[in-house]
Amino acid sequence: MSRAFIAQTPGLHFGGAAVRQLAHRAGRTPFFAYDRSAIDARIRKLRSLLPSGMHLHYSIKANPMPAVVGYLATRVDGFDVASAQEMALALDAGAAPTDIGFAGPGKSQDDLRRAVATGVNVHLESETQLRLVTALGWELGVQPNVAIRVNPDFSVGHSGMRMGGGATPFGVDVDQVPALLRELEAREVALAGFHVFWGSQCLHAPTVILAQRQSVELVVRLASDLAAPPRFVNLGGGFGIPYFAGETALDINAVCEAMHEWLPRLYECLPGTKATLELGRYLVGEAGVYVCRVIDRKRSGGRTFVITDGGLHHHLAASGNFGQVLRRNFPVILGDRPDTASNERCHVTGCLCTPLDRLADDVDLPEAHIGDFVVVGQSGAYGRSASPLHFLSHPEPIEMLV
Amino acid sequence: MSRAFIAQTPGLHFGGAAVRQLAHRAGRTPFFAYDRSAIDARIRKLRSLLPSGMHLHYSIKANPMPAVVGYLATRVDGFDVASAQEMALALDAGAAPTDIGFAGPGKSQDDLRRAVATGVNVHLESETQLRLVTALGWELGVQPNVAIRVNPDFSVGHSGMRMGGGATPFGVDVDQVPALLRELEAREVALAGFHVFWGSQCLHAPTVILAQRQSVELVVRLASDLAAPPRFVNLGGGFGIPYFAGETALDINAVCEAMHEWLPRLYECLPGTKATLELGRYLVGEAGVYVCRVIDRKRSGGRTFVITDGGLHHHLAASGNFGQVLRRNFPVILGDRPDTASNERCHVTGCLCTPLDRLADDVDLPEAHIGDFVVVGQSGAYGRSASPLHFLSHPEPIEMLV
Repeated sequence: MSRAFIAQTPGLHFGGAAVRQLAHRAGRTPFFAYDRSAIDARIRKLRSLLPSGMHLHYSIKANPMPAVVGYLATRVDGFDVASAQEMALALDAGAAPTDIGFAGPGKSQDDLRRAVATGVNVHLESETQLRLVTALGWELGVQPNVAIRVNPDFSVGHSGMRMGGGATPFGVDVDQVPALLRELEAREVALAGFHVFWGSQCLHAPTVILAQRQSVELVVRLASDLAAPPRFVNLGGGFGIPYFAGETALDINAVCEAMHEWLPRLYECLPGTKATLELGRYLVGEAGVYVCRVIDRKRSGGRTFVITDGGLHHHLAASGNFGQVLRRNFPVILGDRPDTASNERCHVTGCLCTPLDRLADDVDLPEAHIGDFVVVGQSGAYGRSASPLHFLSHPEPIEMLV
Repeated sequence: MSRAFIAQTPGLHFGGAAVRQLAHRAGRTPFFAYDRSAIDARIRKLRSLLPSGMHLHYSIKANPMPAVVGYLATRVDGFDVASAQEMALALDAGAAPTDIGFAGPGKSQDDLRRAVATGVNVHLESETQLRLVTALGWELGVQPNVAIRVNPDFSVGHSGMRMGGGATPFGVDVDQVPALLRELEAREVALAGFHVFWGSQCLHAPTVILAQRQSVELVVRLASDLAAPPRFVNLGGGFGIPYFAGETALDINAVCEAMHEWLPRLYECLPGTKATLELGRYLVGEAGVYVCRVIDRKRSGGRTFVITDGGLHHHLAASGNFGQVLRRNFPVILGDRPDTASNERCHVTGCLCTPLDRLADDVDLPEAHIGDFVVVGQSGAYGRSASPLHFLSHPEPIEMLV
């Protein structure tokens, strides 16, 4: 495509090209497009605010597209993975094994064997995992790199999804950590780190700040039982992005300002330790769109339905069926006419034969016609990989890093 | 495996084999197993109750495993499909094109071209679809087989999922049908049938009976505008299966008894028409299990967590994240010890690193140990194909027809 064509093509531009051009590149709709410059800008901004000495990991579960993982490999300090296949993605992208953390309450023997043999940091979440990992270390003739994932003894409000505090399958309760440390010592395995994960998708800066301060206090307290400071502490992620009307972005300035206060304390107590944040959605979620096309419009019961070739089989979260209690609309616009005034209230649906397949309920848009592009924003994380691709046996969506 | 071994293997038997034997056959856990004899028994029972002259279709969306579709091909009178790929499955299984109905509010041009060229019955759900199908008929030089899917002008209570009545993207509103009939006539395309789909997953026999009676009245009324009775009327499905504690099975005897009253009236009004039920979940849902294995157990916050190698990436519905408003447990038992008294209250989770990954909350089971099989019942429909298989990049589940 010539530069002149690119500049002149009307409509929403994304990643340097108009949505219509992206559709030509994809060859068909629906597709996900992720904007590398937006990912880069997000990381640069974050790095400019973070205190030096704060390390940044990408949590692959948010978006495991290999091109995305590869792009991030030179921009973050490591990866957090939740399966052996995610570990393989991180290694393929060039990450050093010791810059990879493998968490998850249900690691299989096969997962653990692959992780121990490769030398990634296994975040132990139970006594069983400890026993298996140390046995595998003996069997394979390697010293395993292990961390302990701690279920924090505090719980935070305002978090989109709590993953710590109270009874959970994640990590080990704080009061069980000393026994695990003794067990590791008895087996002559050194502890490489601690991992504290308190929640995710939090938009409330004071909550993030409090949870991070409490996490620091917790790891400092736990590390006092060790002969030497651990190699790293992973303080989790939890930074949210705004999805719905009325939500405002996390005040990242406030979060990072607080870090300038507590990080020196952490390093004073644990000299030589590397503190790490693990972020997934926050790095890529706002850098992605899902684009589908209007294939029909109809009236029923006095309402207008705009029917697209997309749907929940590609983007379950946007349909409101993945962890939401009350369904709310993701941001939706018409890609060809982003600036046209809205003049029609309609329901935007996917193509599936199920009433669950809703992309936007009761939304105001410019009158949508067959062939129009419907662009769903905030779709860079937990899109394709979190969706039931085979539901009703329709074609899969394309993915592009642009 | 020798017969003696099969008979002697303890634990739950399913499809003629113990769960442990099925796991050997699968080669690993987790797996879905579907019992062909249970599917056959369900259909035989249903056929024995249905009035002669009532035709039975299988709705492939419920379980598109090719072996299941093939097994059903000789046991039902046709298939209902919701995508071109489902159409291909039905054709591969040996169905005649005119015994296949293609419904769906978002059929693409490609879907319609394949359907028209093949000669399957296209259930028109909008004026757009009508225009496209008749144009494709001219282009391809074939007379398209078309039905009209009608959004009924009644709405039913007690249905698990309403798919008709009021404003919906499904079908065309009753008051729009005459215009569509005129449009078909103008284009010299004969109408092959009507399709009325009022809901799904209904356990309340009086509701099913009422909805079916109203559907009959509706198609008789609509058909009065035709020069001759249509070739078929598809009266939908909607028969539910019990998933949760406190739910009781649909009284199928009552539903079929009522059919003996209203079917003669239908045939009196529409001589030569074939009346069809389309059932998906009701035929296969209770004939399937999902089997995973305990890989860890732990205590947190005073509670016991039993962690399996399964999870919502394989079985989203069992996790409570697919269309349910209030999460409830699917039936869960230990496959090796189905008859042992329950002596432990626990939470059964999948292996994923997300709090959404729950298989059974606060359930009473015999004390579960690592290696035990956890069997989730009522898993023959909307299991694997309705789940986000790639979420966290774990291995896919095996499927077997046994």
